[in-house]
Amino acid sequence: MSSATAVADFGLIGLAVMGQNLILNVNDHGFTVCAFNRTVSKVDRFLENEAKGTNVVGAHSVEEFVATLKRPRKIMLLVKAGPAVDAFIETLLPHLEDGDIIIDGGNSHYPDTQRRYEYLTAKNILFVGCGVSGGEEGARYGPSLMPGGNREAWPHLKPIFQAIAAKAPDGAPCCDWVGDGGAGHFVKMVHNGIEYGDMQLISEVYHVLRDGAGLSDDEQGDIFAQWNTGVLDSFLIEITTDILRYKDTDGQPLLEKIRDAAGQKGTGKWTAISALDYGMPVTLIGEAVFARCLSAIKDERVRASKILSGPPSGTFTGDKAQLVKDLEQAMYASKIISYAQGFMLMREASQEYKWNLNYGSIALMWRGGCIIRSAFLGDIKNAFDSNKELENLLFDPFFQKATATAQAGWRGAIGSAVTIGIPVPALSTALSFYDGYRTARLPANMLQAQRDYFGAHTYELEANPGTHIHTNWTGRGGNVHASTYDA
Amino acid sequence: MSSATAVADFGLIGLAVMGQNLILNVNDHGFTVCAFNRTVSKVDRFLENEAKGTNVVGAHSVEEFVATLKRPRKIMLLVKAGPAVDAFIETLLPHLEDGDIIIDGGNSHYPDTQRRYEYLTAKNILFVGCGVSGGEEGARYGPSLMPGGNREAWPHLKPIFQAIAAKAPDGAPCCDWVGDGGAGHFVKMVHNGIEYGDMQLISEVYHVLRDGAGLSDDEQGDIFAQWNTGVLDSFLIEITTDILRYKDTDGQPLLEKIRDAAGQKGTGKWTAISALDYGMPVTLIGEAVFARCLSAIKDERVRASKILSGPPSGTFTGDKAQLVKDLEQAMYASKIISYAQGFMLMREASQEYKWNLNYGSIALMWRGGCIIRSAFLGDIKNAFDSNKELENLLFDPFFQKATATAQAGWRGAIGSAVTIGIPVPALSTALSFYDGYRTARLPANMLQAQRDYFGAHTYELEANPGTHIHTNWTGRGGNVHASTYDA
Repeated sequence: MSSATAVADFGLIGLAVMGQNLILNVNDHGFTVCAFNRTVSKVDRFLENEAKGTNVVGAHSVEEFVATLKRPRKIMLLVKAGPAVDAFIETLLPHLEDGDIIIDGGNSHYPDTQRRYEYLTAKNILFVGCGVSGGEEGARYGPSLMPGGNREAWPHLKPIFQAIAAKAPDGAPCCDWVGDGGAGHFVKMVHNGIEYGDMQLISEVYHVLRDGAGLSDDEQGDIFAQWNTGVLDSFLIEITTDILRYKDTDGQPLLEKIRDAAGQKGTGKWTAISALDYGMPVTLIGEAVFARCLSAIKDERVRASKILSGPPSGTFTGDKAQLVKDLEQAMYASKIISYAQGFMLMREASQEYKWNLNYGSIALMWRGGCIIRSAFLGDIKNAFDSNKELENLLFDPFFQKATATAQAGWRGAIGSAVTIGIPVPALSTALSFYDGYRTARLPANMLQAQRDYFGAHTYELEANPGTHIHTNWTGRGGNVHASTYDA
Repeated sequence: MSSATAVADFGLIGLAVMGQNLILNVNDHGFTVCAFNRTVSKVDRFLENEAKGTNVVGAHSVEEFVATLKRPRKIMLLVKAGPAVDAFIETLLPHLEDGDIIIDGGNSHYPDTQRRYEYLTAKNILFVGCGVSGGEEGARYGPSLMPGGNREAWPHLKPIFQAIAAKAPDGAPCCDWVGDGGAGHFVKMVHNGIEYGDMQLISEVYHVLRDGAGLSDDEQGDIFAQWNTGVLDSFLIEITTDILRYKDTDGQPLLEKIRDAAGQKGTGKWTAISALDYGMPVTLIGEAVFARCLSAIKDERVRASKILSGPPSGTFTGDKAQLVKDLEQAMYASKIISYAQGFMLMREASQEYKWNLNYGSIALMWRGGCIIRSAFLGDIKNAFDSNKELENLLFDPFFQKATATAQAGWRGAIGSAVTIGIPVPALSTALSFYDGYRTARLPANMLQAQRDYFGAHTYELEANPGTHIHTNWTGRGGNVHASTYDA
C-alpha cells in the first residue's frame, strides 16, 4: 500500500480530452478528483496545464491512485472500449476492497458490460457501465449520463453524477439510474441509434428541399431556423441551421463542398443488430444505417447515375410552401415513430435481462446534454410520467393526436418524393411502420400459408391461436385438410 | 477397422426426412449409398421401409459406416446445425484418412462452416458446406445444391451432386461449385434472405389488393395466375395462386382464416445482420425481416388499431385495372432491387473472404429446385454470362431497361398505398434504394457536417477526397476553418 492519504472523492483513469474534461467538470462541483493514466507523463502534463489551479490531484502508479481515493472508491475508466477496459479492471482488482466501485464511461458494447457486471459482482466490486453523451463540450460543462449496473453503487455516485450532468430546462439533472447489468450502455447504444435516425431524417428533408424544391442553403437555413421554434425544436435542427448558413471563404455554402459519403461502423449498427436479435421492428434506425452504407459506395453511385433513369421530372412543381409544411410534419411524425421503436427495443431487452428500465428517466436523461436533446423529449417524459406502464409511446394521447394531425403532410411529402424520385427511406419506413402498427390484420397470413405450402411449417388459425395446422394445399399426395390435421 | 467391404459411393448421416429423401435420390441415380444414424435402430427401420428394394446399405456403427465407403470417402451430414455437426466431425475424424470428404448439408451458419473448413483443411480432410434448398420434395426429386469449401473435393462430388440436383428448364443442373470456405452456406443464407423478401413483396401486393382494392381471393387468384405467365413467372407466384384459390370445407378461402403473425428467427435475420456487418444496403431483406417482427406483435397491433387513425379513406377509388398493372411493375422492379442487393452482399463477402464466387452459377443454382426458382433467375444468369465482371445487376442492359420501364407503375403503386394507408415497406425501400443508388450526390454531406459540428469527427471535401478536415462551425472558441485546419 502506498502512503498516500485518501483525499479524493473520485478517481478517473484515461486522460484523453473526454477524461480531462470530465475531471475538470467534477472538480468544478467541489469534489476532489485524482487523475491517472497508463502513460504516466500525461498526468503531470495535465496537472501543469488544463488542471492547473484546480483541486485535481494526480497519481503515478495504480497503488498511489487507489490509496488516494476515499472509500468506497469510485473509479471511472474513460479508456478505449474493448480489451483495454478488461485490462484496467484486472490491474485494479488486487488493490480494491469489497464495495469499491468501478465505472466504465467508455463506448462499451452492452454485452461486455453485462459480462463485467456479473464478473465483478461475484468479487464484491460494484460495477457500473455508464453511457456518456454530449462529446467533449458535454463532458466539460454537462453531459448526459446513463449509469447502469450494480445499483448499490448509485447512492455513492448520485451526488457527483447529478451535479456534473447537464440540466433539463426545468433544472432536473440529465442523469438517473438506468437499470441493472448492462442497461446503461444498452440505453446509450439506443440513444446513438436514434441519433442516426434523427440525422437521416434531416438529411432526407434537406435532400428534398435542395434537389426537389431547388431551395438555396440560405433559404433552407431560414426554414430550419423556423422549425427550431416549433415541435422540432432540438439541438440537431439548431446545428443544421448553422451548417446551412455557414459560408466558406469564397462566400459559398461550405456544406455543398462536402463529400456525401458517411461511415457506419458504430453503435447505430449495433442498435440495428440488436433490433434483429430481439425481433423488434426498429426500421427507421435500420434504414438510417443502410442509408449510410449506400452513401459510402459513392463511386459506384456516380457510375449508376449515368446509366439508371429517374422519373420524367425530378423537380417539384407544386406549392413549395405547402411542401415545406408537409416536410415538417413528415419529419415530426417519423421522429415519433423512431422514438417509439427505440423504446420498444428497450422494453424488449429490459424484459429479457430484467433490467427494470425506467423509461421516464431515460427520456429525462436525453432531454439535455446529448446530441438528441430536444423539446420533444420533454413530451416523451410527460407520457411516461402520466403512465408508467405505457405500452407504447404511440398509445399516449399526446402522441396519438400528434401523429393523427401530422399524417396528411407526412403522406403528402412522401408522395411528392416518390413522384420526383428523391429517396426518403427513413420517412417512408416510418410511415410503413405506422400503417402496419395500426393494422389489426396484416398480410402475414399469406407468409404463413406459403411456408406451410412449400415446407409444411404449419400455421395457426385466427379462431384457434396456439394450435398448429398443416394443409395439403395442392390436393396432391394425400387428402389432409385444415380442420382434420393437427401437426 | 471393421471387416465391411468398401462398396458405397456415398455415405449419409442423419435419417430425418431430408436425409432419407436425399439418400433415395442418390440411389435413383445409380450410386450406392450407405446410411447411418446416431440412433441406430432408425437405420434398420429405413432399410425395411422407405429404402426397401433399393441398393441402399446401412451401417450400425461409425466404424462399419466408414469401412463401407469407397475412398476418398464422401460423407454427408444432414443433422441439426450447431454442436451436433462438430460432434459428428469429431466422431468421424479418427476413422478417416487424408483426402476423405465431409459435407455438411444442414442449415449451418457460414462462420461455422468457415471455421470447420479451416480446422479440417489443417487435418487434410476436405470439408464442404453445402446449402440444400427445395425442402423434402426437393431433396427427393431434385434440390438446389450450393456446395462450397475445399475445392479439391469438387471433382469427386460433381458427378453425384449434378446428377441428383434439380435441372433448369434448359436441362442444366442446379448445382455448381460456389466458392471456397464458408461460401456455400453463405450463398444459401442469402438465398433464404431473398426468399423472405420475395414473400414479403407478394404479401404487400396481396394486402393492397385485398384491403385497398377490395378484391376477393378468387379475383386475386386470377391476377396471380396471369402474372405467373409474365415477368413474375416463379414458384412463389404459382403457389400464391393455389393458396388464394384454396377453399376450406365451408367453401370460404382458407387463407383468410389464417393468423397474420409470422416468426423470423432464421436465416433471413442472419442475412440482414451480415448486411449490417459488411456495410451493404440490403434494405429489402431488412424490411422483410422487420415486417415479420411487426406481424408477430399481433395483440399489440389489435390494440393500436383501435387508437391510431389512418387517412380519410383507406379504400382505393381509382382505376383498379391500372392499379393491378402498377402492382405487377412494382413487384417486378422491387424484386430486381432485392436480387441486386443480395448480389452486392455476396460480392462484398466474397472479397472479404476471397471466396471467388461465381455469380452466374449462383443464379443457375437458384434457377430450379429451390423456393425462389423463377424465369427471372434465367435473366440474371444471362446478365452474368454476358459480363462476368458485372459490377451490379442494375448495370446490365436488360435490368437497366426493366427498371426504367417499370418505374412509372412502381411509383404509382407506392403512391396509392401511401395515400390509402396500406403499409408497403418492402416496395418502398426498394424504390428508395433505386432512387438513392442512381443519385450521384446524396445528402450524406449533411451527416458529415453534423458529425463534424458536434463531435469534431472531420469530413472530406468533394474536391479533395481522402483529406480529413475540421471546421469550427459556430465561429465560437477559435478561428479554424476548412481550408486551413487538417485533422
